[in-house]
Amino acid sequence: MDLPTIKDLRDAAARLAPHVRRTPLLESDALNAQTGARLLVKAECLQRFGSFKLRGATNCIAAMSPDVRKNGVAAFSSGNHAIAVAAAARTFGVPAVIVMPGDAPRAKTHQVRALGGEVIAYDRVREDREIILGAIARERGLPIVRPFDDPFVIAGQGTCGLEIADDLTALGLAPDVALAPASGGGLASGLALALRDRFPKVEIYPVEPEGHDDLRRSLAAGAIVENAPGVRSICDALMAQRMGDLPFAIGADGFADAIAVSDDSVRAAMRAAFARLKIVVEPGGAAALAAVLSGAIDVRGKTVVVIASGGNVDADVFADVLRDAN
Amino acid sequence: MDLPTIKDLRDAAARLAPHVRRTPLLESDALNAQTGARLLVKAECLQRFGSFKLRGATNCIAAMSPDVRKNGVAAFSSGNHAIAVAAAARTFGVPAVIVMPGDAPRAKTHQVRALGGEVIAYDRVREDREIILGAIARERGLPIVRPFDDPFVIAGQGTCGLEIADDLTALGLAPDVALAPASGGGLASGLALALRDRFPKVEIYPVEPEGHDDLRRSLAAGAIVENAPGVRSICDALMAQRMGDLPFAIGADGFADAIAVSDDSVRAAMRAAFARLKIVVEPGGAAALAAVLSGAIDVRGKTVVVIASGGNVDADVFADVLRDAN
Repeated sequence: MDLPTIKDLRDAAARLAPHVRRTPLLESDALNAQTGARLLVKAECLQRFGSFKLRGATNCIAAMSPDVRKNGVAAFSSGNHAIAVAAAARTFGVPAVIVMPGDAPRAKTHQVRALGGEVIAYDRVREDREIILGAIARERGLPIVRPFDDPFVIAGQGTCGLEIADDLTALGLAPDVALAPASGGGLASGLALALRDRFPKVEIYPVEPEGHDDLRRSLAAGAIVENAPGVRSICDALMAQRMGDLPFAIGADGFADAIAVSDDSVRAAMRAAFARLKIVVEPGGAAALAAVLSGAIDVRGKTVVVIASGGNVDADVFADVLRDAN
Repeated sequence: MDLPTIKDLRDAAARLAPHVRRTPLLESDALNAQTGARLLVKAECLQRFGSFKLRGATNCIAAMSPDVRKNGVAAFSSGNHAIAVAAAARTFGVPAVIVMPGDAPRAKTHQVRALGGEVIAYDRVREDREIILGAIARERGLPIVRPFDDPFVIAGQGTCGLEIADDLTALGLAPDVALAPASGGGLASGLALALRDRFPKVEIYPVEPEGHDDLRRSLAAGAIVENAPGVRSICDALMAQRMGDLPFAIGADGFADAIAVSDDSVRAAMRAAFARLKIVVEPGGAAALAAVLSGAIDVRGKTVVVIASGGNVDADVFADVLRDAN
């Protein structure tokens, strides 16, 4: 597969305009004072359906010829990508079949069904979702919408970066550093393509959970390495077993390094987003903000952008995080 | 005092441009489905310092001649207006003296001081804040920034309505109904001036806490009536004893009626804003959304705008509200 280019991102932006929300770049005097930086937060949690995933899924389906998608589309995901594919398929009037683990959050399977998606449950321990998805896709003639390893998906996520670049330009700012939560690496690699085109010196950092730091190890090794199975983290949206081939190819040159953050720093970042920005950020969505606020990266005196990538968190989990502060 | 005009609102927008954030108009497919309406939520909780109050305070101080404000400004408030005046005074490089009740939330007195404001505490039971404020203002030669009964403050709050009008026009929509939380009536009357200029048929509703429904009773009586003392509500930001003279004069013609909402419906609206819009809304800030979601007003088939006017809520209060759902 060819790597997506800045032109692919611009084409994606034109395709997505009627379907996605242009999310704001927020700022807090208190967070600027706390970090000693000019900190800008892209509030992608305010995106329709609560995460950036709508961008990539919509771009991927929009770019298919009507004949390719006529029977519908298929995907696997336990979370935000599932909801995004169901929503994007509905936009184009085609069915969506989503393979989801039987123990996926009920709120998320419920939302997929509410959007008209068909949910196929599988046993996470005994079954292989790739095999199940492949069989269904073949049987029903459905193209697969991959969560990150697809040039149209990466270009779609990159439109988030184009908006950031435009807003920074309007503010007369050039970013020194930009950080995005990362699992498969689709958002971070799209961000790298978007920002480095406009600001060649910007350093891009994907941010991942501690103990699940395959991006950092892959970049260091010069080859993709997988995460050990069974690692637990509050960042349920950042648990891909390995990053994508395309994000790795983009990131090998486009990422400065990767940063790993602890669950506690993620909780603190969620509380800061609540108190200072008045936005609801899910654990995985707060990883990049956590890297900055915890001091995992030194940003004093710099202009810094972080993406708050999603807000789909259950009320009881969020309440627990708020209570932790006491 | 003359009533502010649409020109005053436009002048305010020009003055405020460098100092306030243009907040987004959010929408949720789920809330549209739930209400049977096209529901647009002006997320003013994302404003700098967490509420619309920055608009009015900044416009009022910006419009003063440098000679008038040279010794600083004074205000009384237990909440968002206090923070807004301190922030606006800092913008213009002058001191702010804020008279606050001794039992005001520590987070709010702390924030006023962090912004360089001087806090004068008074005893809510034994002392009269008007007398204290008047004495300090005379002694030190400070103009008073009133929370709502001032044409510049109302024009500043009205800029929120101008942004709504522009965003609706860009979406090709004309609103049937618009609702704003109300206490003194500054925001709701500014909204009426802004929206009725562009959309003469729109119905404007201020929304207030049950048992504290002086706006509804004042509009019905054709004269300002006060609230009984001692009423309790979760909406701490909506507890003015009576509405302002200017908001009453604007509202007598500009408001369709006023609506009162229960604490429980406010909590449900805060949860809906959390789950569907991913924004943090304080109790008083959620009153207008509560009126729509509780069915206190029938909006089926209509295009409806509500202002989510602030997000300054303590973490433990917000966690309690989220837990209530169980």
